Amino acid sequence: MRVLGIDCGTEYTGYGIVDLLSDERSRDRLVCIVCGAIKVSPREPMPTRLSHISLGLQRLIGEHRPDRVAIEDVFYAANVKSALKLGQVRGVAMLAAASAGLEVAEYSPLSIKSAVVGYGRAEKQQVQQMVARLLQLDVIPEPADAADALAIAICHLHTAATLERQTEVRS
Amino acid sequence: MRVLGIDCGTEYTGYGIVDLLSDERSRDRLVCIVCGAIKVSPREPMPTRLSHISLGLQRLIGEHRPDRVAIEDVFYAANVKSALKLGQVRGVAMLAAASAGLEVAEYSPLSIKSAVVGYGRAEKQQVQQMVARLLQLDVIPEPADAADALAIAICHLHTAATLERQTEVRS
Repeated sequence: MRVLGIDCGTEYTGYGIVDLLSDERSRDRLVCIVCGAIKVSPREPMPTRLSHISLGLQRLIGEHRPDRVAIEDVFYAANVKSALKLGQVRGVAMLAAASAGLEVAEYSPLSIKSAVVGYGRAEKQQVQQMVARLLQLDVIPEPADAADALAIAICHLHTAATLERQTEVRS
Repeated sequence: MRVLGIDCGTEYTGYGIVDLLSDERSRDRLVCIVCGAIKVSPREPMPTRLSHISLGLQRLIGEHRPDRVAIEDVFYAANVKSALKLGQVRGVAMLAAASAGLEVAEYSPLSIKSAVVGYGRAEKQQVQQMVARLLQLDVIPEPADAADALAIAICHLHTAATLERQTEVRS
């Protein structure tokens, strides 16, 4: 299974595509396919910025054909204005997924930290270090938004794998 | 000039296209070309809803070819969750405009009420009645979101006409 994690932001929108593979002993292995961030200038009008983000995500989806998209669910924002702006980017990300026929899964920051570090109150840096370790990368992916997007993708893969195992045990 | 006003909402997204025409005595006249609302079901997943709104707006823009898009600027929301949801719809509306090469103008509720009724603290119903009068409609457009979208378009046309007159006086 291939998942595109998106970390929505009004300046940097991080992305990370992760594959879940099984080796010959049926052990799960996570592989980072691509990661990075779409940077938009805060000096450009918002519709232009949204257009850049949309095109960037469409290109990524077209090139790497993920099976699913995962984004972070947000419960906190400094104020209404920043929640609205972040919402605008989320809307464009969700639309890019829906236009490609992909379902979108949303995960709380707590679920993402728990899935990656095993501890819901982990620091941001601990999450990023664990992302590098799980994906067997020599360095923490940069910018931080790329690492955060990979964490969201890993969270979805862990959750999906756990659900699958539970179904197998039940049946 | 032809303006598409959009009243973003998570269930009903109102739209209204208004032309500003000059009669033989060079008196400005406002004409309603089309208005209505794109309704989406709250039971559908958000990406599907955003996809419906996006397609609806793209169709409108393609069919009626407005010169500009106007939306309401928002400063208030009940909470972060509702601001995020509204932002998602705004993002999709802005993207539809940008993808068609159209600029987006944003107006505060106060500016819209001032432009339509001449009084920034006017009630919602007063605004809707004035929209019907200015556009010479026999009844107030329904749903209310359609009338609100027309008010946003009228606000842009009034503002643009005033700016133009000021430029003419100065030059």
